[in-house]
Amino acid sequence: MNHIIYKKLSDCALRREKADLVLKNARVVDVFTDAIYAADIAITEGRIAAVGSGYEGRQETDLGGKYVLPGFIDAHLHLESTMVTPNELISLAALCGTTTFIVDPHEAANVSGTDGIDYILDQTEHSPANVYVMMPSCVPATDFDDNGCILTADKMAPYLENPRVLGLGEVMNSPGVISGEPGLHAKLELFGGRILDGHAPSLSDEDLSAYVAAGIRTDHEASSYEYALKEARRGLHVHIREGSAAHNLKDIVNGIISDGICTENFSFCTDDKHVEDILRQGHIDHNIRTAIRLGIPPVQAVKMATINTARCYGLHHLGAIAPGRQADLITTDDINTLTILTVYHKGKRLDPAQTPVIRKCPDALKHTVRLEPVTSDIFRLPITKDEPHVIQLNPAQITTADVRRHFEKTENYIPSDGFCKVAALERHKGTGLTGIGICEGYSIRGGAVASSVSHDSHNIIVVGDNDADMAAAVNAVIRSQGGYSLACQGNVYDTLPLPVMGLMSEAGFHEVNKKLERMILQAHRMGVPEDIEPFITLSFLALPVILQLRVTPRGVLDTVNFRYIEY
Amino acid sequence: MNHIIYKKLSDCALRREKADLVLKNARVVDVFTDAIYAADIAITEGRIAAVGSGYEGRQETDLGGKYVLPGFIDAHLHLESTMVTPNELISLAALCGTTTFIVDPHEAANVSGTDGIDYILDQTEHSPANVYVMMPSCVPATDFDDNGCILTADKMAPYLENPRVLGLGEVMNSPGVISGEPGLHAKLELFGGRILDGHAPSLSDEDLSAYVAAGIRTDHEASSYEYALKEARRGLHVHIREGSAAHNLKDIVNGIISDGICTENFSFCTDDKHVEDILRQGHIDHNIRTAIRLGIPPVQAVKMATINTARCYGLHHLGAIAPGRQADLITTDDINTLTILTVYHKGKRLDPAQTPVIRKCPDALKHTVRLEPVTSDIFRLPITKDEPHVIQLNPAQITTADVRRHFEKTENYIPSDGFCKVAALERHKGTGLTGIGICEGYSIRGGAVASSVSHDSHNIIVVGDNDADMAAAVNAVIRSQGGYSLACQGNVYDTLPLPVMGLMSEAGFHEVNKKLERMILQAHRMGVPEDIEPFITLSFLALPVILQLRVTPRGVLDTVNFRYIEY
Repeated sequence: MNHIIYKKLSDCALRREKADLVLKNARVVDVFTDAIYAADIAITEGRIAAVGSGYEGRQETDLGGKYVLPGFIDAHLHLESTMVTPNELISLAALCGTTTFIVDPHEAANVSGTDGIDYILDQTEHSPANVYVMMPSCVPATDFDDNGCILTADKMAPYLENPRVLGLGEVMNSPGVISGEPGLHAKLELFGGRILDGHAPSLSDEDLSAYVAAGIRTDHEASSYEYALKEARRGLHVHIREGSAAHNLKDIVNGIISDGICTENFSFCTDDKHVEDILRQGHIDHNIRTAIRLGIPPVQAVKMATINTARCYGLHHLGAIAPGRQADLITTDDINTLTILTVYHKGKRLDPAQTPVIRKCPDALKHTVRLEPVTSDIFRLPITKDEPHVIQLNPAQITTADVRRHFEKTENYIPSDGFCKVAALERHKGTGLTGIGICEGYSIRGGAVASSVSHDSHNIIVVGDNDADMAAAVNAVIRSQGGYSLACQGNVYDTLPLPVMGLMSEAGFHEVNKKLERMILQAHRMGVPEDIEPFITLSFLALPVILQLRVTPRGVLDTVNFRYIEY
Repeated sequence: MNHIIYKKLSDCALRREKADLVLKNARVVDVFTDAIYAADIAITEGRIAAVGSGYEGRQETDLGGKYVLPGFIDAHLHLESTMVTPNELISLAALCGTTTFIVDPHEAANVSGTDGIDYILDQTEHSPANVYVMMPSCVPATDFDDNGCILTADKMAPYLENPRVLGLGEVMNSPGVISGEPGLHAKLELFGGRILDGHAPSLSDEDLSAYVAAGIRTDHEASSYEYALKEARRGLHVHIREGSAAHNLKDIVNGIISDGICTENFSFCTDDKHVEDILRQGHIDHNIRTAIRLGIPPVQAVKMATINTARCYGLHHLGAIAPGRQADLITTDDINTLTILTVYHKGKRLDPAQTPVIRKCPDALKHTVRLEPVTSDIFRLPITKDEPHVIQLNPAQITTADVRRHFEKTENYIPSDGFCKVAALERHKGTGLTGIGICEGYSIRGGAVASSVSHDSHNIIVVGDNDADMAAAVNAVIRSQGGYSLACQGNVYDTLPLPVMGLMSEAGFHEVNKKLERMILQAHRMGVPEDIEPFITLSFLALPVILQLRVTPRGVLDTVNFRYIEY
């Protein structure tokens, strides 16, 4: 700590100087002893100087016995997945009490490499919350990806100096870890002694042991209590995820309560939570409330969003109400229902009426769709096999099934009976690579949907029942330098531009949401089933780490046997 | 972790290779979930590869359902205070299950500076336990000390590179912290982000807040539950001390149980525990047993000696039984009485029959008493005041009282009626500084006791009822280049040489103890009361941080008002 700031803190603690702000008559939630006690909180220079009685401040707020909690921490999330710019999302979530965000900018890195990471760091430097970055470990996610950048250990090394970079982001390549793959282990070693975040869904007991032995410290992929317990026993810190798509909290928390195990090594995260869900139900506060409702004692639940996470990431200045810690504080009048009344960040009260600042993006990051306009003939798909493989969508899930269907042999397959063509077009390097396949269950009729958000490489993905609409939708995405587009009977119905790396809009949440709702409605009108979100479902159809068939710019990939499908 | 070692661990976890050792049929104490479960523990390359069933090893040991615990950690101790060489103490304590020692070599540093610290590091590098060093923060302890070395931040800086140096040792100078003293704050900043150990007995609420705000993270000086609670609430990790002299455990643990507070932020330490006490009652295992007997649930108590401490010091490879962690393990057949059956360090079973290795000390560190032989006239003490101050010993405590007594004015005071002269002779730099005073309560008749162990500067301290025996005892200590000496009616009764920095013997515990017992017996025969340990009491009479009068080479110091006494 700066020497001048320390002297101010010390003088305030010793009652030689008035505090900047005193929160009088607080009920302090003490995450160290699990007790709640009455005290004043003296704040100076954005930090807590003392928690005691009778402190005087230049400003004083009488809380009248309200509870004060440490600000909440989201242990793992991706800012770029929300389509709004980072500061906008953070500003909204901070009003729910999340004052610290541990983010993995791997979407940005897959498009723009370290420039994308710098964008996230720069955009969030003056946000009304603390934003820490985990360096994306798997860019590209697999050897089957055609993305915008290969992020090696060498490129990461300069970030070790950045105090806002805490460690290595979710290590998805568990086979690479376990087999000792040198490039990946170079990254583990580079961040040795720091925190290495994991991503380890459904590993066998043996694989999970080997994975943990490499020094991985956390995971947020446990979707059942049994799996979470298996992880906790191995020393992994389990981030219980409750976001827009993944709902893991209930099962894990019920198991914790039922077994009565210690919650010290559990935290909360959202991973991906969209603005509309944050506005509707809250952010990490929603995880805490849900855990309390299921039966976790309130202080324990609060700890899972505060000190447990701060300790896990070595954030000694956060996560508790104690001298020297940053004054990130929340007030509530009910420790069970946890209605957030006010939020303080660095001792300043956040103003819910203030519109989030949308910071401008460097121009280069708004020109990342490097692809010439296409014509419909690039979607030609000859059928030469008797019963080709078809990607069957699983409703309300991101996995797909690999099914065989009979089609007539032809020079160019023309979809009918609810089948669609789906294609991925490389968009980073102008290679012209285009992979095409057939899917079942999307069911759009007389049109096509295209997106530059397609995990994790974020090439352009398009689905449709005719080549002309597919080309129209793709060209609309190219014109807007990224976005979502819906084409309908030869015309572009609408386009949501996402020009920031092809992932985010600078138009603000309300504008984005208005357009998105209209496009989703139209897609459903055109035949996309109600239990399929047309854009999100599409954006996961390219992700090669998910079972069972995926479309990539090199063709349809069987992710069980890792081979390409022939038609 | 080394890549080749990782591959072996991974192959073992995946059952591709046999383990070096499998502990079959263990009851594993899981400090992450607070549960105990049945499993085999597969160990390879000194690390745990997996905890599961059916693992095969080149060596297998059937535990038949015995409990296996992680090796214990002593959170804070001084190796040099035990008179034996470091490896001897560690070897004995390791057999009690303490496999990790977090040591502060501030005695060695006060005598020999960084050479003393290097000695501790070198001596313990191949000990049968993990030894980590906290850099002594207060060398010298006060501005009133004449010690062997001034340890500045600059001199400490190279130690940041040493992976066995974890942070800054107990910061005793709390006024310096609170007032922002630049030299001290330079040390706090040097170790910023690492662990800063505290030493904060009896601070006011305000002072303690200011002290903690400087980033201090631990304290081991709490002697009551009330004080420990005050520390815990401020975010200090409380090391509960139970050693040879300090007995803080019962009061603190009873309070924890009574209030039902969380024990996550509590650990165990010994601070100073002598070999005879270790042989009689154990080491950290004694702390755990006592806590369990008082009512702490066994797994909680074990955590206070394992994972809590490992986490506090960032020792991610220790403190738990999980893949990748070091195989420091203990077996017991009763989790309540905790009789230690076997201890494994890095997967190797410690052999209780093996005599501890006594490693040789560099020659220079055996020549640290830089003082010419003295004659009895240096102990001349003229009395010019009516009622001079007298140092009154408090039986069984290290504090003293400041009392006034009437003596006749004289050219040289000659003790009688149970009074003694006490003197401190600077021994590091040959300055010839000698401070002399009068004490009450030591009561030796016809002799003198001298010691080169005198906290924290370790000058020569001597107490006696006549100048000739005082000179004889001091000269015996000078001849042996450090040690304890007892002179009796003009002759040296015996000397225990402590030639290693004037603090330690290379003769081994049994030799030291035999001689010490004989000398203590004789001192009591010569009038030293039974409730005063003649050498330890003497060794604390020079420590200027303890109330109320102390003898230093510059004279008798009033440690309340920090001024020297005149006779």
